Amino acid sequence: MTSARRIVLASRPAGQPGSDNFRTEAFELPEAGEGDVTVKALYLSLDPYMRGRMSDAKSYAAPVPVGGVMEGEAISEVVKSRHNDFSPGDIVRGRTGWSSHAVINGDQLRRVETHGAPITTSLGALGMPGFTAWAGLKFIGQPKAGETVAVAAASGPVGSMVGQLAKLAGARAVGIAGGKEKCAFVKNELGFDAVVDHRSENFESDLKAACPDGIDVYFENVGGRVWDGVLPLLNQFARVPVCGLVAHYNGAGAGDRDRLPATMSTILRQSILVRGFIQIEFAKDHFDEFLAEIGPRVAAGDIHYREDIVEGLEKAPEAFIAMLSGGNFGKLLVKIAE
Amino acid sequence: MTSARRIVLASRPAGQPGSDNFRTEAFELPEAGEGDVTVKALYLSLDPYMRGRMSDAKSYAAPVPVGGVMEGEAISEVVKSRHNDFSPGDIVRGRTGWSSHAVINGDQLRRVETHGAPITTSLGALGMPGFTAWAGLKFIGQPKAGETVAVAAASGPVGSMVGQLAKLAGARAVGIAGGKEKCAFVKNELGFDAVVDHRSENFESDLKAACPDGIDVYFENVGGRVWDGVLPLLNQFARVPVCGLVAHYNGAGAGDRDRLPATMSTILRQSILVRGFIQIEFAKDHFDEFLAEIGPRVAAGDIHYREDIVEGLEKAPEAFIAMLSGGNFGKLLVKIAE
Repeated sequence: MTSARRIVLASRPAGQPGSDNFRTEAFELPEAGEGDVTVKALYLSLDPYMRGRMSDAKSYAAPVPVGGVMEGEAISEVVKSRHNDFSPGDIVRGRTGWSSHAVINGDQLRRVETHGAPITTSLGALGMPGFTAWAGLKFIGQPKAGETVAVAAASGPVGSMVGQLAKLAGARAVGIAGGKEKCAFVKNELGFDAVVDHRSENFESDLKAACPDGIDVYFENVGGRVWDGVLPLLNQFARVPVCGLVAHYNGAGAGDRDRLPATMSTILRQSILVRGFIQIEFAKDHFDEFLAEIGPRVAAGDIHYREDIVEGLEKAPEAFIAMLSGGNFGKLLVKIAE
Repeated sequence: MTSARRIVLASRPAGQPGSDNFRTEAFELPEAGEGDVTVKALYLSLDPYMRGRMSDAKSYAAPVPVGGVMEGEAISEVVKSRHNDFSPGDIVRGRTGWSSHAVINGDQLRRVETHGAPITTSLGALGMPGFTAWAGLKFIGQPKAGETVAVAAASGPVGSMVGQLAKLAGARAVGIAGGKEKCAFVKNELGFDAVVDHRSENFESDLKAACPDGIDVYFENVGGRVWDGVLPLLNQFARVPVCGLVAHYNGAGAGDRDRLPATMSTILRQSILVRGFIQIEFAKDHFDEFLAEIGPRVAAGDIHYREDIVEGLEKAPEAFIAMLSGGNFGKLLVKIAE
């Protein structure tokens, strides 16, 4: 038996999670059954949606039970395999959780394919975040040449891809990010046409100045106050893919007045499309198409990304907590083993 | 010269309009130029969107100027024609305003065609309200057999058509209306599967009971508090065509808390589509298709409608004011002449 470590949900948070909501524990890895694969985790992906899994509010996915291992996707190396598709040494991706090792049915694993880019991209630019950006634009946002695409958390793994894909479509990309360092990255390294700091006191007028022709696509992945700046700029027939509301996850994001009537009136007046989505809706039919289209561009360095790699599984809770308040910079990964 | 009467916007209302916002005046009808048609109005349509035209807030259409004739669509008889398509005695439909007579370019008129139904239906079931229902369902709501379609103002000209078209698509139609009389009409005459009174203290639980399988399409034409009952019932992949927010037109419809975060979270969690629209987006390409499909059904009595006809142009302001607070029952028309 292999001795392994995992991080479980110790208790449900009220508002912002704290380190006491998590507990690291040792566990004995079970024997693999027929069709199972035993893996050693290399990199764990930390993502905002995990905050939702910590609560038992109604959601599109079941919550993590108290005492259960925190859910998450990781890149792993196959140690033992009782599944025909995998052999020891294979690098795979799967929802093995916040855990150093796992035994999982091989049907739930996917071989990592990055077209030559580093394997960590399969959790970021070429993984769920990158696919979220690609699918949200392809199936909902549909930016056209000359249009303006705005996205918040623009230095993050979804937002950075949204802007770069918008540019590839011939649209103008306007990023929204927090702080000078992130804004400089969005403008200079990712090549967005403009960037606005949401921490600025003049955020709303700054955004307006950055979008002289209004906004045709607003890729919503934060919610909260950014929306108040975006709403008056939305053009007729604007599209708003909604893939995340990180500002709401801790119960924040509410205003001191009812902001719904203004939102609905604008949706009506401007014939706006708002569409929530979870990437899994499109993944089965379109992930391979995404990988074939975007993989070579990432491998060639035409599409840029940034990673924020924390060392050691036990660091996952504090890194996750910091991410929820914008305290990281780039796709957040936890390196668990070499 | 013909002596004519018209109703103009005397002043802009703050909140609920009053009779002092309108003024009836006599005017001399101008001579018709080349291509013009002189018409005598028979029936004027009164519709909620007109409240928007009384304000100078940003809108999809320019406001009526103070002192200008109130905008609106009417059925008229051609008195004189200097346009090749029309002759005296023709019955036509056009945006001739709240006016007993008008001179208008013939290109802006449309010959009334109702497949044998009364001409007044060209302002209701076979006019803009009916087309709004048809287009909102066909291009946005897309109800499938077995799904549940809910609509508010279900006894009104748009809502009554939404439910009947939903039934034709094999869906379950749930109406929301105000008061016993309207509810009975929706259930018994229009044939909806269920109806809920929004004036009930138990509105939210009544609606839930009427939608045991949730709501797949909510046709939004009122806004306000009804939304709070609808939101928790929306199913995954629900569609919400937004064609009107009459509850907001007088500045009402706001809650005592910020209702936007719950709405956006539900849109995300349930992968919901919300799409504002104005029927003119679809009218040019699809009005004839609508008329060919629905006209014979209305003429044959397979699709039911109700009209609320007020006599005399001078009654238009008070009838319009009452309509905004739900005080009419059926498609509101003003009979101006025989």
